[in-house]
Amino acid sequence: MPPSPAAQPHEPVVKITGRVICAGLGPGDPDLLSVKADRVIRAARHVAFFRKAGRAGQARRIVEGMIDAQATEYAMEYPVTTEIPFDHPDYITALARFYDDWAARLATLATTEEVVVLCEGDPFFYGSFMHLHSRLQGRVPVEVIPGIPGMAGCWHASGVPITWGDDVMTVLMGTLPEAELTRHATSADALVIMKTGRNLPKVRRALAAAGRLNDAWLVERGTMPGQRVARLSEVADADCPYFAIVLVHGQGRRPEIAE
Amino acid sequence: MPPSPAAQPHEPVVKITGRVICAGLGPGDPDLLSVKADRVIRAARHVAFFRKAGRAGQARRIVEGMIDAQATEYAMEYPVTTEIPFDHPDYITALARFYDDWAARLATLATTEEVVVLCEGDPFFYGSFMHLHSRLQGRVPVEVIPGIPGMAGCWHASGVPITWGDDVMTVLMGTLPEAELTRHATSADALVIMKTGRNLPKVRRALAAAGRLNDAWLVERGTMPGQRVARLSEVADADCPYFAIVLVHGQGRRPEIAE
Repeated sequence: MPPSPAAQPHEPVVKITGRVICAGLGPGDPDLLSVKADRVIRAARHVAFFRKAGRAGQARRIVEGMIDAQATEYAMEYPVTTEIPFDHPDYITALARFYDDWAARLATLATTEEVVVLCEGDPFFYGSFMHLHSRLQGRVPVEVIPGIPGMAGCWHASGVPITWGDDVMTVLMGTLPEAELTRHATSADALVIMKTGRNLPKVRRALAAAGRLNDAWLVERGTMPGQRVARLSEVADADCPYFAIVLVHGQGRRPEIAE
Repeated sequence: MPPSPAAQPHEPVVKITGRVICAGLGPGDPDLLSVKADRVIRAARHVAFFRKAGRAGQARRIVEGMIDAQATEYAMEYPVTTEIPFDHPDYITALARFYDDWAARLATLATTEEVVVLCEGDPFFYGSFMHLHSRLQGRVPVEVIPGIPGMAGCWHASGVPITWGDDVMTVLMGTLPEAELTRHATSADALVIMKTGRNLPKVRRALAAAGRLNDAWLVERGTMPGQRVARLSEVADADCPYFAIVLVHGQGRRPEIAE
């Protein structure tokens, strides 16, 4: 196994009878949870989830109606999100302390209890849970249930396969420098660009420079109510929520009989 | 919506009361099917699946015990797989005819019946179903249920998240030329390399040239019985089944308090 990032191998001083289970929720439609995640969430007595302060939280919203009325809920509210630049020392410190504190709290609870942590999409694919996962290593048992990544919900919303045959697919964050976005957009067949939002003008310029803008689609709320699919070239810069995903479909090898 | 690849928009001449539902099965553990796919498969009266001639078929194996005893099963056996090079005209013609024939057969059946097609992983991510999907457009209604991609099962098997923060992730096929593999392995943070098998020596050379070989893992049967995770540098060239996946994990941004 690859070494776990921030593993802290030490023997627990008390007998551990609980554990932490992170349940991947998939792209948003509750019918797309795995059979296992569905079962674990319905049976949970302790349910934790991330959310922006003052919001209901997307993860919690997906499982609405599934959580037992007797269960205890733990809203893990981010101390900061996009108010401070992500490379600012204050941002790094605030987030690190937030993850440290919640990891400690969940570890204590999981000494005797089973705690289910909800995570949108797939927890091991750009998920926030991984920051708890690395901090929980060696403290309590942790199980992670895979989920359908949010990007898959988006390419299903587009109605067309994202990759065929030997297509190269690259997943990019809109936060990257424009030159890097352009370079990757030029060299891959299929593209998935996440964290668009305020980066949309830059993403658009990079795709135009790579000759891919006319094949790009913006997908919002894939598989959820209010799902929206639009040509990126026709979307206004101001009209892009942070979690919309830009897709360029691959056009790879397809066996067809020559005319 | 993006235009569907080989769409043939024409009015059906008979009233269509059935449809084709493609159910993504996920990485292999039946507990990782979506709630929706699980329900649809258990209720199915007609179940079709791809397989290599003479084999049980991986898709069919995943749903063992779930299919109703009264259901009719349709094994769609590939006419050729790796015996002929994939760019040989005979290969292309044989495969095209195979997809044409099965699309016609499923379209006829779906005039009055609901037909469930099983598809490993996610049907819109390098899935064979897309070759039927494009041929069924305009003939019968088609619904596709997303699944957890096989690669996600593999990174979960590795026990470590594949991507963090702003990591760039690229998905590659081992069938690509060595120089292309090296170029992508150099420019992405996280890598997923599929279709390894006989391409393993080439994949290994490309990763070594990119300075990534020591961080590469080979994952076989992720989430399934007999799951295996090994350092790629320690696996013999001859010891790699076609469907094993090579992973290089991203090491992106992680908020930690400076010591």
